Amino acid sequence: MRNRAVGSEPFSHISGMLYVRTFISFTMVNDNKPTSFPKSRRVYVEGSRPDIRVGMREVTLDPTRKTDGKLLPNESVRIYDTSGAWGDADFHGDVEKGLPFIRSQWILERGDVEVIPGRATKPIDDGYLSAKHAETATRAESRTRLVHFDRSQRQVLRAKPGYRPTQLAYARQGIITPEMEYIAIRENLLLKQVADDSKVGRSHLGFQHPGQSQGAAIPKVITPEFVRDEVARGRAIIPANINHPELEPMAIGRNFLVKINTNIGNSAVASSIEEEVEKMRWSVRWGGDTLMDLSTGKNIHQTREWILRNCPVPVGTVPIYQALEKVNGRAEDLTWEIFRDTLVEQAEQGVDYFTIHAGVRLAYIPLTARRVTGIVSRGGSILAKWCLAHHKENFLYTHWDDICELMAQYDVSFSIGDGLRPGSIADANDEAQFAELKCQGELTKRAWEYGVQVMNEGPGHVPMHMIKENMDKQLEWCHEAPFYTLGPLTTDIAPGYDHITSAIGAAMIGWYGTAMLCYVTPKEHLGLPNRDDVREGVIAYKIAAHAADLAKGHPASQIRDNALSKARFEFRWEDQFALALDPERAREYHDETLPQDSAKTAHFCSMCGPNFCSMRISDDIRKMADEQGVTEEVAIAKGMEEKSREFREKGGELYQ
Amino acid sequence: MRNRAVGSEPFSHISGMLYVRTFISFTMVNDNKPTSFPKSRRVYVEGSRPDIRVGMREVTLDPTRKTDGKLLPNESVRIYDTSGAWGDADFHGDVEKGLPFIRSQWILERGDVEVIPGRATKPIDDGYLSAKHAETATRAESRTRLVHFDRSQRQVLRAKPGYRPTQLAYARQGIITPEMEYIAIRENLLLKQVADDSKVGRSHLGFQHPGQSQGAAIPKVITPEFVRDEVARGRAIIPANINHPELEPMAIGRNFLVKINTNIGNSAVASSIEEEVEKMRWSVRWGGDTLMDLSTGKNIHQTREWILRNCPVPVGTVPIYQALEKVNGRAEDLTWEIFRDTLVEQAEQGVDYFTIHAGVRLAYIPLTARRVTGIVSRGGSILAKWCLAHHKENFLYTHWDDICELMAQYDVSFSIGDGLRPGSIADANDEAQFAELKCQGELTKRAWEYGVQVMNEGPGHVPMHMIKENMDKQLEWCHEAPFYTLGPLTTDIAPGYDHITSAIGAAMIGWYGTAMLCYVTPKEHLGLPNRDDVREGVIAYKIAAHAADLAKGHPASQIRDNALSKARFEFRWEDQFALALDPERAREYHDETLPQDSAKTAHFCSMCGPNFCSMRISDDIRKMADEQGVTEEVAIAKGMEEKSREFREKGGELYQ
Repeated sequence: MRNRAVGSEPFSHISGMLYVRTFISFTMVNDNKPTSFPKSRRVYVEGSRPDIRVGMREVTLDPTRKTDGKLLPNESVRIYDTSGAWGDADFHGDVEKGLPFIRSQWILERGDVEVIPGRATKPIDDGYLSAKHAETATRAESRTRLVHFDRSQRQVLRAKPGYRPTQLAYARQGIITPEMEYIAIRENLLLKQVADDSKVGRSHLGFQHPGQSQGAAIPKVITPEFVRDEVARGRAIIPANINHPELEPMAIGRNFLVKINTNIGNSAVASSIEEEVEKMRWSVRWGGDTLMDLSTGKNIHQTREWILRNCPVPVGTVPIYQALEKVNGRAEDLTWEIFRDTLVEQAEQGVDYFTIHAGVRLAYIPLTARRVTGIVSRGGSILAKWCLAHHKENFLYTHWDDICELMAQYDVSFSIGDGLRPGSIADANDEAQFAELKCQGELTKRAWEYGVQVMNEGPGHVPMHMIKENMDKQLEWCHEAPFYTLGPLTTDIAPGYDHITSAIGAAMIGWYGTAMLCYVTPKEHLGLPNRDDVREGVIAYKIAAHAADLAKGHPASQIRDNALSKARFEFRWEDQFALALDPERAREYHDETLPQDSAKTAHFCSMCGPNFCSMRISDDIRKMADEQGVTEEVAIAKGMEEKSREFREKGGELYQ
Repeated sequence: MRNRAVGSEPFSHISGMLYVRTFISFTMVNDNKPTSFPKSRRVYVEGSRPDIRVGMREVTLDPTRKTDGKLLPNESVRIYDTSGAWGDADFHGDVEKGLPFIRSQWILERGDVEVIPGRATKPIDDGYLSAKHAETATRAESRTRLVHFDRSQRQVLRAKPGYRPTQLAYARQGIITPEMEYIAIRENLLLKQVADDSKVGRSHLGFQHPGQSQGAAIPKVITPEFVRDEVARGRAIIPANINHPELEPMAIGRNFLVKINTNIGNSAVASSIEEEVEKMRWSVRWGGDTLMDLSTGKNIHQTREWILRNCPVPVGTVPIYQALEKVNGRAEDLTWEIFRDTLVEQAEQGVDYFTIHAGVRLAYIPLTARRVTGIVSRGGSILAKWCLAHHKENFLYTHWDDICELMAQYDVSFSIGDGLRPGSIADANDEAQFAELKCQGELTKRAWEYGVQVMNEGPGHVPMHMIKENMDKQLEWCHEAPFYTLGPLTTDIAPGYDHITSAIGAAMIGWYGTAMLCYVTPKEHLGLPNRDDVREGVIAYKIAAHAADLAKGHPASQIRDNALSKARFEFRWEDQFALALDPERAREYHDETLPQDSAKTAHFCSMCGPNFCSMRISDDIRKMADEQGVTEEVAIAKGMEEKSREFREKGGELYQ
């Protein structure tokens, strides 16, 4: 499972630190195919119409075996599932055909889009000067040419003149779209249990700490109307291009579950379609909520096409990367026309959100001059270079209105880039960073005027005590648009472990209100992640997101913790594995010490020995409490405490 | 590197969840011997007398190569080093002889201790009924009997009657001990650079964010007098048994660097001394500040002896574990006499701190009855079982004064256990936990009256929004005694990754004021950690501790971040590796993509290609800034911002 992209173009930018957003570029092998998770099955919850069917993973649990031998059933637990149809054992799809269209009907019935011929693809879209060049170059590099996806059965959609078919526009008009209803069901998936368990006490699954949200307000039950309202206010987005009908709708906003993004890139040696698609499926299997395709070099267009047609989650890109390829990597040769053409190309393919670094304004660039690590965002450097070469204002800034107009026609959402984010602790929260953040706020407002959905990208490298300032300023300056941060990394001294340095910051900023966290893998700053690195990165970020959900008090977030802890305490090992973020790792670690199958079903006492058993002690305690009454006992405890304090306060000679 | 302790006694308690403090039990192999870190050498800083020599790791850095070819030197960086003499390439020690005594003179010259014959070791100390039993049992289990450490050249020390030779007692008398001076030098190790760099600007190594300490006050320079004062107030401890003269003094307190603890345990099959000692050396190599020996089963006494004689950091134990072995694992058979004898045994060996679960009072036990995960601390369960069996108050609580009296005679510090800590998110911050914490506060005050140093153990499993309450209550109720926490784990759903779930909580509580963090390995809840798990756990906790130091504003904490980030930006790969918490991992990850040696010395431009180079862009920006003057440029930037805002506020029709 080693990366084969040695010395490739994308690597140079990673190693060059221009490029903190790690992306996947690894080779899949067939014997390493993802398998389904244990004790799990796909269930669907239907909405108000039969074509709203929200898929979830349901984990079946074993009964609790009491010390007296009695069995008490444990209710199954539902888990938010990002794997799409690929996670359904009954789905036998074919990557060459792509995923089924689940949104086409919803998009078309709104009557505000039309079929257009669409922009014809050009050899330059894949990095070639001509069809002939593509052929000879491919031969010269002795690579297999990436087969083109068969689009003969596909159409390109665009807004009818005068319409803006965006979820924001609908929300403002008071329309609850099927996408919004889908999301409400999806975010509520565990609430059945909350309702069922509301009558039982603390020790049951339904118990949940109230949470301490930082200025957000998550309702007990997320209704379709709540989703609409959050989108209308700009506090949440539903990235969902009208040309990506395969997508399962999801929301990014601080009153919803915290989401995570993973990055992938094309392989330097793209040997097969399966390989490119497999990276995406690996990400969504572990829980990636959105996917950024950060491909560079050759075959960008076709790689993206294969991903989009098979991807159940929103896909984001940084269009300036492809535009740069079209001008042979020379930033100063970029033009608005080339960039615009690239936006159209990608919007027609179905990209759901674009990172656009319009906030890297000419005037801010000198603010980075005294930094320890200058400009570390690849997009930021490209634009800085262009600005310096021409001594002109950033053309993305000057063309902002044109960009908004265009994106509104396809419902592509903005992810306004943070090209001046800090690349080290020393550069955190500096003038350059905050100047750009303020500008992101201005750009957000202007995009909203066009009905375009917006989120804002954030740092980067920030020590813990300076994280909250980022969130506070973003909320204020960017008018509560969703924040989408990379980490932040809370220290610079642990290359090889930056999934951890950044998970700390990510969990905190998620709690403070960040809506989506861009993952970081252990290879950050060092090289290209392989398959295992991606898994490590995704799990670290699922941990951060979930820890944030608990702290924010998302109404259903604690069910899984409670179910897993109960299983753990009762030695239901298989249940503990199945409920874990990574069931395979949990089992593997357990088996290193106790590989026998019997160890996973054995009653606890065979493990603890006859003299010392936590379960029996707990049972003793519960019996004692039942006999004497807990409340009474509490009263006694408190009484003794008080007596003891009284005694000490009066001199407490006994102890002196 | 697989653990061989399959199905052993210690494992059962881990798997039984009684035992959240993970410990090491792995087999070392010879070809896996730790090597020294790259570009590093041991340096010693001498104090006011020649026998105060504080060892540090100094990392030599390459010069900066500017784009014009000029070379600018980079000053070396000093790193806090816990590896003791083992980390000195010039030291050729022998584990059979133990480490040199660095504190003997300091201890003896105070004139308050005397040599005593000491308690004779008994077969039961190692789990055997008699010498004969030890012999036959060892043969029956076909294990090599653990050779005894040769103590013929060693003496046992104890306080002279009427004296309390504790660092707390000295501090209160206004005495600055050599230990205190040693610590002041050690904690200040980087300050030379802060001073040297104070004249240069933000981009230099000396730049440091001010930090945002939560109620603590870390001075610019840590003086011996400051150390004394913190110890006198009980806000810091110096765990340093008079019978552990090999120890290099260190402080645990919230106005010092955040420390981390690692745990080790004896192997079920103790085949060699080297093996037992090697676990300890592996921990301190990666940065473990203290070490808890949590051995159970056979050979506890001898294992501990080998560790103590070779260990440069404070060693802690949970004496009730050994006491329990002496009564064949039957908690109800424990007596004060057996426990007391165990304390004497361990104090005379040189254990520096004892975890004692005196706060698990009878009256609190029923408060755990309705918990999801009951009592998960092993010590807590043992005492709960004893209390329930006898329906009597915890004998550690009733004998607290006797324990204090005893510990004062050897300067053993307390780590007052948290036997009722929560084992799941659901149980966090509950009545049982806080009842015990209050009691810990009472016990702290009483111990201080005997001149015994104290820290308090804390949780456990706590969601992010409930972490601060733990710290606040501990500060208030325990009178600012140092807090020593396990994690806390911020979610329960990631078995296999609990070093990450807990590093998040550890970093936060460290920032809030926790003085020491007990590490958690990826095997937590699942099995025994192997060598790699220990490394993962230590590094995760070094990250948490360092992130906390940055956030607290420890005066020298940011130097290493700045130096590493500067090296990274300048493509000094070897320097980046050498400054990393784990240089080997960083290099290995880099080499997976670019294994050639040339890649580590190559000038950046050969990697980024001729068209696009971050270093060149940064140089361009700096030149431009120099030419035009940064301040002027900033003024222009601000002016433009204002103009733009003014325009928008006046209507900004352009954008609508």
